[in-house]
Amino acid sequence: MSIDIRLITPIITKGIRTLEDVRPLERQGLTVSHSLLESGPSSIESEFDEALAVPDSIRVAIEAEHSGVDAIILDCMGDPGIYACREAVSIPVLGAGQTSMHLANMLGHRFSFITVLDRIRPMIDKIIGSYGLKDKYASFQSIDTPVLELSHDLEALNEALSEKALIAIESDGADAIILGCTGFLGCADAIRASLQGRGYCVPVIDPIPAAVHMAEALIKSGLTHSKVSYPEPSLKVISGYSIPKYNSAAN
Amino acid sequence: MSIDIRLITPIITKGIRTLEDVRPLERQGLTVSHSLLESGPSSIESEFDEALAVPDSIRVAIEAEHSGVDAIILDCMGDPGIYACREAVSIPVLGAGQTSMHLANMLGHRFSFITVLDRIRPMIDKIIGSYGLKDKYASFQSIDTPVLELSHDLEALNEALSEKALIAIESDGADAIILGCTGFLGCADAIRASLQGRGYCVPVIDPIPAAVHMAEALIKSGLTHSKVSYPEPSLKVISGYSIPKYNSAAN
Amino acid sequence: MSIDIRLITPIITKGIRTLEDVRPLERQGLTVSHSLLESGPSSIESEFDEALAVPDSIRVAIEAEHSGVDAIILDCMGDPGIYACREAVSIPVLGAGQTSMHLANMLGHRFSFITVLDRIRPMIDKIIGSYGLKDKYASFQSIDTPVLELSHDLEALNEALSEKALIAIESDGADAIILGCTGFLGCADAIRASLQGRGYCVPVIDPIPAAVHMAEALIKSGLTHSKVSYPEPSLKVISGYSIPKYNSAAN
Amino acid sequence: MSIDIRLITPIITKGIRTLEDVRPLERQGLTVSHSLLESGPSSIESEFDEALAVPDSIRVAIEAEHSGVDAIILDCMGDPGIYACREAVSIPVLGAGQTSMHLANMLGHRFSFITVLDRIRPMIDKIIGSYGLKDKYASFQSIDTPVLELSHDLEALNEALSEKALIAIESDGADAIILGCTGFLGCADAIRASLQGRGYCVPVIDPIPAAVHMAEALIKSGLTHSKVSYPEPSLKVISGYSIPKYNSAAN
Amino acid sequence: MSIDIRLITPIITKGIRTLEDVRPLERQGLTVSHSLLESGPSSIESEFDEALAVPDSIRVAIEAEHSGVDAIILDCMGDPGIYACREAVSIPVLGAGQTSMHLANMLGHRFSFITVLDRIRPMIDKIIGSYGLKDKYASFQSIDTPVLELSHDLEALNEALSEKALIAIESDGADAIILGCTGFLGCADAIRASLQGRGYCVPVIDPIPAAVHMAEALIKSGLTHSKVSYPEPSLKVISGYSIPKYNSAAN
Amino acid sequence: MSIDIRLITPIITKGIRTLEDVRPLERQGLTVSHSLLESGPSSIESEFDEALAVPDSIRVAIEAEHSGVDAIILDCMGDPGIYACREAVSIPVLGAGQTSMHLANMLGHRFSFITVLDRIRPMIDKIIGSYGLKDKYASFQSIDTPVLELSHDLEALNEALSEKALIAIESDGADAIILGCTGFLGCADAIRASLQGRGYCVPVIDPIPAAVHMAEALIKSGLTHSKVSYPEPSLKVISGYSIPKYNSAAN
Repeated sequence: MSIDIRLITPIITKGIRTLEDVRPLERQGLTVSHSLLESGPSSIESEFDEALAVPDSIRVAIEAEHSGVDAIILDCMGDPGIYACREAVSIPVLGAGQTSMHLANMLGHRFSFITVLDRIRPMIDKIIGSYGLKDKYASFQSIDTPVLELSHDLEALNEALSEKALIAIESDGADAIILGCTGFLGCADAIRASLQGRGYCVPVIDPIPAAVHMAEALIKSGLTHSKVSYPEPSLKVISGYSIPKYNSAAN
Repeated sequence: MSIDIRLITPIITKGIRTLEDVRPLERQGLTVSHSLLESGPSSIESEFDEALAVPDSIRVAIEAEHSGVDAIILDCMGDPGIYACREAVSIPVLGAGQTSMHLANMLGHRFSFITVLDRIRPMIDKIIGSYGLKDKYASFQSIDTPVLELSHDLEALNEALSEKALIAIESDGADAIILGCTGFLGCADAIRASLQGRGYCVPVIDPIPAAVHMAEALIKSGLTHSKVSYPEPSLKVISGYSIPKYNSAAN
Repeated sequence: MSIDIRLITPIITKGIRTLEDVRPLERQGLTVSHSLLESGPSSIESEFDEALAVPDSIRVAIEAEHSGVDAIILDCMGDPGIYACREAVSIPVLGAGQTSMHLANMLGHRFSFITVLDRIRPMIDKIIGSYGLKDKYASFQSIDTPVLELSHDLEALNEALSEKALIAIESDGADAIILGCTGFLGCADAIRASLQGRGYCVPVIDPIPAAVHMAEALIKSGLTHSKVSYPEPSLKVISGYSIPKYNSAAN
Repeated sequence: MSIDIRLITPIITKGIRTLEDVRPLERQGLTVSHSLLESGPSSIESEFDEALAVPDSIRVAIEAEHSGVDAIILDCMGDPGIYACREAVSIPVLGAGQTSMHLANMLGHRFSFITVLDRIRPMIDKIIGSYGLKDKYASFQSIDTPVLELSHDLEALNEALSEKALIAIESDGADAIILGCTGFLGCADAIRASLQGRGYCVPVIDPIPAAVHMAEALIKSGLTHSKVSYPEPSLKVISGYSIPKYNSAAN
Repeated sequence: MSIDIRLITPIITKGIRTLEDVRPLERQGLTVSHSLLESGPSSIESEFDEALAVPDSIRVAIEAEHSGVDAIILDCMGDPGIYACREAVSIPVLGAGQTSMHLANMLGHRFSFITVLDRIRPMIDKIIGSYGLKDKYASFQSIDTPVLELSHDLEALNEALSEKALIAIESDGADAIILGCTGFLGCADAIRASLQGRGYCVPVIDPIPAAVHMAEALIKSGLTHSKVSYPEPSLKVISGYSIPKYNSAAN
Repeated sequence: MSIDIRLITPIITKGIRTLEDVRPLERQGLTVSHSLLESGPSSIESEFDEALAVPDSIRVAIEAEHSGVDAIILDCMGDPGIYACREAVSIPVLGAGQTSMHLANMLGHRFSFITVLDRIRPMIDKIIGSYGLKDKYASFQSIDTPVLELSHDLEALNEALSEKALIAIESDGADAIILGCTGFLGCADAIRASLQGRGYCVPVIDPIPAAVHMAEALIKSGLTHSKVSYPEPSLKVISGYSIPKYNSAAN
């Protein structure tokens, strides 16, 4: 069995996420491919940005399924359009946020979500609530830096994240840390080491690797999302979008 | 003070909602105007449909604010894009669903939501959860008829809805009924009378009139949504959409 | 349609609430009248005070309905006797607390309740819980001043309230503010401006105007509370109270 | 140590509750005395009835404390005025409802509340919610008979209650039964035997004996309610009531 | 009626709990006996310790029932094995933790749990959740001292506990205090006095006396746990344990 | 990287679970080994059985870690001793129950748990509550057959399970099915097909394959449980058990 996983980064900006980022996750029997959007925002930091990202994410998800990939990962912690994509395709659609939150809940009792900007707190609170995990949500912390300005000074970024993680553990009672922006890819090891140096051995979840491995686990287990809750959309007249499979219905 | 309220029906189908529907709600000092979408689905019955409705709803909401209206009502019980629209404008944005659910919660202890199709149950459960009202949600009931096939035989529709409302009260413990599709406009009186004939005096909430009057109440009280939770979107490069105010940033 | 709303201030002290307070809310087609109690406490700051206020509030509510008013507002944030009054009358009975809390929940995600005295915290916690809104309750704050000693120095009062509102936003994560004493009538604008000066545009809910406008909205929508949950009291022998309608049953 | 417990039946009707009812609970070192109200309703079946019962219950509670009793039990499953009475006195004030619900929660996982009338369901739901026990509340069942018409045919009453208890266990998933009206005093043994005959050994809680023994346990443990949450009422002008200790403040 | 209550201290260390500790609770008609384990840990400070304590606690509980005692109290705040013991015997099995938490919930609105070690926080959080009392749980505080090193300097211990109790009230909003280690037996009066000196009259629950009196109350009320939720274990082959009643089934 | 996963079946009965069961899950780079207990019950159907299974499960888990395996799976849906084992080892310890419940929560909105016996319902309710997933738990269903009598007539078993799954979907509102006994290994495909024949495409989770693949995902992601919440047990005197690593401390 060879497994193909498609990572959809739901923005239009080239160069932030590249295949180089996911190449290390590949191994024999596992390939990871990558898509950007053609229509949408240059980064996602609001409900507004999410709204503009979802329609083209659906198109890209449908094309991914048509091209034969085995699972789709939405590369954004707010999981924009995860339910709409699940309606449109039958292969597993994982959200970087949803996957991380469930892993955190399995490995500890109270997780903190450490991210880029204070302003996305209501969005994150909302999805944690909708996944039924609010009782296990210790806190939201942010380093208050826009996604597109994320330091290329990795050391400074790791230090800023480690400091927030320490506060989450010591003040908020967290016992697991979610790196709450997929742009933090690769920072987990340094943060884990920094916390361990302070006496805290806690899981630090790097969402993209975690989601890739979880997607593999679902595929090997023969599992996908429920079509009772995510039934296929009815064909109907649609204007202004060209969505494969639903195309013929467009006026 | 003259109040102008804009009803946005987030679909492209002409003729389902007309100004005739809302004319009876107007009175001295209150006018209600109406917009449809240019891009989007012909009806909303899935997360997929909602996703295609939101971007153009945002555009229409921004234009409504520019044109000087005092409040916006989203004419769909799933409140698609309510948070994104609130980020984009400063005037009150009400959802037909959110408003009805809060009124039901004020007037009784456990409400039922009676709608068109079984398949939207997960969507409704999700928004009720996100509004924090799950403890007061007695049940979901549906007459299982697509929106665009809603009977023009009003009497048959009223009977079908009254029957479900009776089940909601007698079997599910509901004490308030939400008409869970804005296409049921005008059915409330008949259902209320039917239930009263069975010995049950319960509020039957017709979402559009309720939302228009609630919008008036907010405006008169000088209240709008919180900009702490719905901050204005950052200007950034956007592709594929032409959204006023955010236009200049588009590539 | 001319709408008459009766404000019942459930205390015996004359001069704290006057018609002058509500006159500005009147306009063509809307009149607001006012009642005090004959029996009861001079202010409400405990469950004990509430208990002594409720029987005469019921009497006054029944008389209000008899006299033809369209809706009743209980002028106290603890909503004393709201359910008993709803059993006794059929016109809408609104609580200043319940109405404010629902509006706050609609306009933001987490509200704070800023009031007179620390000691009423358990009472407020209890009603928020009974309305099912606990998940949205960011914090309770008080300026710790008895109702009857509320400063006539409005500027000092506004400053004290603004300071607590700022703490609610910055430390407790609130995005909406409820003025938690109907004696704070008229303070909302100053507090809103003060918060805006600190960069926070949040709804600041002044309960009495909000409740008057909400009552109007209910009346225009033809809605009142559920008689399934608030059924009319059975006639039975009552001693020590003279309650219209239930009089003949008294021994 | 001799313990004196005062049972306050918060109605005016003589003969429903008598000292004969509680005599069997007395033993060496334990006496139980009894009070009725002078002002109030003849039975409690609504929020309206409760409201009229509370002021005189407070007076009787204060007099009980003055007369030297060690604890007070409110003889009504809705626990009317329990918080107001706790503010007014320092000795333990137990509610028949609160005590039964906590015992049920300790002895099983999901309790049912079986009572006289369907119409009190919202009142019972409300207090269970306010005690934080909603997750453990399997169901509400009623035999739909007014308190004052409770059969003197004990056998028929026991049969009706046993039937509802059986439904609670088999259909609602209950594992403990609360006799939800203090007028059911003495029925527990027969119901327990009837359920045992059907193969179900479950606790059947008779509220008055349970509350008397719990009051004893509190007294022996030196425990009473928290004055942080139930602080003594401030002295202030009161009209229309003659409440000892707060008398001098009345106008 | 003479009541015999068996206190099971689920550890093997002699001398920590002695009959002298419980002698003061005895009175005419009430005797308290005591058992230690033969197999198990020397103290309980982890899930690991609990796991090793439970099998022998079951054996001791069965022997206690055989010897005719009327109720069993597990002398550990984590209530280890309470459900397994309830399956194995029919007499009431009380946990020191469960009993204290329910009493705290009856006497106030939000309790704090003050105990020996930070590391048992997840265990305590878990049992409070499983009893359905999480909404009423104000905070966890610890003096961070292992059980076997608990100061014999009672004054220092009382001071440390009083300090944490004060923080619980002033910072965490607690209105009732649970002494969260049965090794704190006898400290309640000093802590209560210390808090009263700071103006706070709150219940301070000493778990062992409270559980003994609650056990008495259950026995006098004829109540025990539900056999629907704690049914007798099926006889089956067991290896490595010698448990009376289930012996014959061992290989 | 070669991954070794140890399945611990926490009972003493030989032949129920064999390496043949897990062999099909192995592939290049993944081996699955298996352990039974030496001390414990012959099957797990009660809290009593669980209590007797945990001490030897800890021993076997410690030995598994010593022998170099990468992760441990507890082969029982009640996850007996999962927290104690996590304290004792550092490699991931997965429970068949916990893993299935989180997967179900990720793939749908409301799962049902279909198992062997009605009597384990309280145990399952308890663990679902402790994992924070109660809001997503649609129902418990059982075929009421003891584990050791599970039909070797696979077809009959599949039919019985499919029937319960259908009820879960149609009556309880489930959209995902958990096979709630690890003895149902291998039944998922037939049940999924049967439901699909009725029009329902839902995930049917077979716990052992799912847990094996999830364990792989955790190992590849470098994640294990939090040592903040599951700290290593203190060394102390232990009697009656011989637990490696803690041995030297035994008397």
